[in-house]
Amino acid sequence: MNNFIWYNPTRIIFGKDAHKSVGEEVVKYSKNILLHYGGKSIRAAGTYEAVTKSLTEAGVRYTELGGVKPNPRLSLVYQGIGLCRKEKIDFILAVGGGSVIDSAKAIAVGACYEGDVWDFYEKGIRPEKALKTGVVLTIPAAGSESSDGSVITKEDTQDKCSCCTEWMYPQFAILNPELCYTLPEHQIRAGGADILSHIMERYFVPNKNTDLSDRLCEGAMRALMENLPRVLRERENYDAWAEVMWTGNVAHNGLLGKGREEDWASHGIEHELSGIYDIAHGAGLAIVFPAWMKYVYRKHPERFVQFAERVFGIRGEEKDTDEVCLTAIGALEIFFHEIGLSTRLRDVGIGRENFDVMAEKACRNGKLGSFMSLTKEDVREIYEIAW
Amino acid sequence: MNNFIWYNPTRIIFGKDAHKSVGEEVVKYSKNILLHYGGKSIRAAGTYEAVTKSLTEAGVRYTELGGVKPNPRLSLVYQGIGLCRKEKIDFILAVGGGSVIDSAKAIAVGACYEGDVWDFYEKGIRPEKALKTGVVLTIPAAGSESSDGSVITKEDTQDKCSCCTEWMYPQFAILNPELCYTLPEHQIRAGGADILSHIMERYFVPNKNTDLSDRLCEGAMRALMENLPRVLRERENYDAWAEVMWTGNVAHNGLLGKGREEDWASHGIEHELSGIYDIAHGAGLAIVFPAWMKYVYRKHPERFVQFAERVFGIRGEEKDTDEVCLTAIGALEIFFHEIGLSTRLRDVGIGRENFDVMAEKACRNGKLGSFMSLTKEDVREIYEIAW
Repeated sequence: MNNFIWYNPTRIIFGKDAHKSVGEEVVKYSKNILLHYGGKSIRAAGTYEAVTKSLTEAGVRYTELGGVKPNPRLSLVYQGIGLCRKEKIDFILAVGGGSVIDSAKAIAVGACYEGDVWDFYEKGIRPEKALKTGVVLTIPAAGSESSDGSVITKEDTQDKCSCCTEWMYPQFAILNPELCYTLPEHQIRAGGADILSHIMERYFVPNKNTDLSDRLCEGAMRALMENLPRVLRERENYDAWAEVMWTGNVAHNGLLGKGREEDWASHGIEHELSGIYDIAHGAGLAIVFPAWMKYVYRKHPERFVQFAERVFGIRGEEKDTDEVCLTAIGALEIFFHEIGLSTRLRDVGIGRENFDVMAEKACRNGKLGSFMSLTKEDVREIYEIAW
Repeated sequence: MNNFIWYNPTRIIFGKDAHKSVGEEVVKYSKNILLHYGGKSIRAAGTYEAVTKSLTEAGVRYTELGGVKPNPRLSLVYQGIGLCRKEKIDFILAVGGGSVIDSAKAIAVGACYEGDVWDFYEKGIRPEKALKTGVVLTIPAAGSESSDGSVITKEDTQDKCSCCTEWMYPQFAILNPELCYTLPEHQIRAGGADILSHIMERYFVPNKNTDLSDRLCEGAMRALMENLPRVLRERENYDAWAEVMWTGNVAHNGLLGKGREEDWASHGIEHELSGIYDIAHGAGLAIVFPAWMKYVYRKHPERFVQFAERVFGIRGEEKDTDEVCLTAIGALEIFFHEIGLSTRLRDVGIGRENFDVMAEKACRNGKLGSFMSLTKEDVREIYEIAW
């Protein structure tokens, strides 16, 4: 096991009706806040009304900034920073999914910085202060509600950069599974693939002697694989949604990767896809991950054998190792198909025309991944397998 | 899944040599601290020298208070409170196991309170302030290094009471598996049983629809059951110790019980045992838990069937439910025997003379447990089964 630090101070407030008392939570920090959201998810299920009612009842003044889009934009972050300064705001409440939360985090560090907030994302300058943030989560997927990271896109150059700092942990995140009932099907699918990928990026590592975290990862994968199909069939199944939402949080709160060298190559390879094509991050991951697996499994086949046995119940004793590994990868593809996702680029209308460019960009900061260290030639090959 | 709040702000600093830079961590909070410890564990493995050297190098002045004993005493807590006031101390560093940490937490809340610190433990008064604390853990068992609770014994009345408050979360806990190499065998055994019991108290619950936390509990139990025998065989096996120490922390940081009604009857039943007899808490749990299981399993046999299948790999298809449950309980007893613990009171020289008194005391605040609600008559029966 590698040395590690485990720290996550975000308070998770989980359960029915939880968002209806968000005002009581916010007022512990501020009476003058920015209410930040996207468009659709806050309007669904009466969330906007419930949140603003609770804020008003708690005596919290809120300035609204909506309009966050998937792959949240730097220009809106600038706008938020300006609003916070003008209105002397010291707390940001993000109501939405990962994009809204990431945008709120960027505004939070940017509002306390004299320079350009993009410095934190592009130049790796470390924030030394931030406004506090809170979250009402409406889409279980990104795990940003209790992570220390944020990903922002600069529109003019299409650069997508991330920033990680303890200043970005939200003070609290409210998770009410009922808010998921109205999610469109494509978001449930892509969100599920994103959650599963967060676990797999932490699971497929070169480390030995990671018994506990292996088993926690395997347990989280099984819980997700059992409950995601259930919420697709029964859109108002509270118990199944509670499992998906809680798994989505645990998948990315940092715990599952402790003592391990997390991989994240598949995320890097996918980012280039969704940077060019109109495909949701999670849907892209369902295509990239199996292709990555087929390319790398021979590097540490024992890990894929364990994945086969413990996650899919594939008995490997009398089989060839290659066969066991490929059967497990096939089982993962079948799971993605079952929840309605494609596992080939050609099936979502993406051609081979940009493989070189994407491979080049994916490796612009060096090789990718820890399970196997990937060059741009490797990445190109993975796009081919994914095609 | 029940509504819940998940919050744990303690920073876990895990790994080789971690305690050697404790001074750098402490100095973020204070330059004038109480160094609190027991006797043996801080003297072993050069821990005392390494910790005091690091404190001195960081410019931290430390006042020492050693002598914490198992079942930490209120009188020493009073002494610590006096020292903190006299020396204007604002931070307590606990170096030791659960008893030292619990004592430090009591001093931390007591030093900020004008009344008697025992009020928090006996009368349930809520602390509103506390000195900050940090931990160097030397015994993986109690999980107090990142819990919000403390248990203190008042010597004159032999009352053992607990207090839980967010003020008691340590700021940091340093976990270096190397510090476990010199632990005496009986502490390893009892510590292991304590860790396993912390998981089982959270696992055996009446709730349905707890997929993720079930699987996290099962994974943690398996990781512990695989690695505890290894550290008993190979006392300097870093990797196995790392699993035991990390599992000990995760077992009691609160995560595994989220969304569930935790039980804790076995802990209550055991407390009366170790209150009267000279038996370690963990060793007592190894006796009480199987007896509790035999008495209650018919209440929710499906949970024991799941335990049998997922933790011990017992296939239940063609067997009678009772048989599957009892086989699993037997497998747990065999595990305890394998690590050198008895599972019967008679085998540790405890007679039946105090069963009535202990059952009465165990239920002095009402019935015990959530899996099955136990009266004093039930508790007495469990002592009988344990005999």
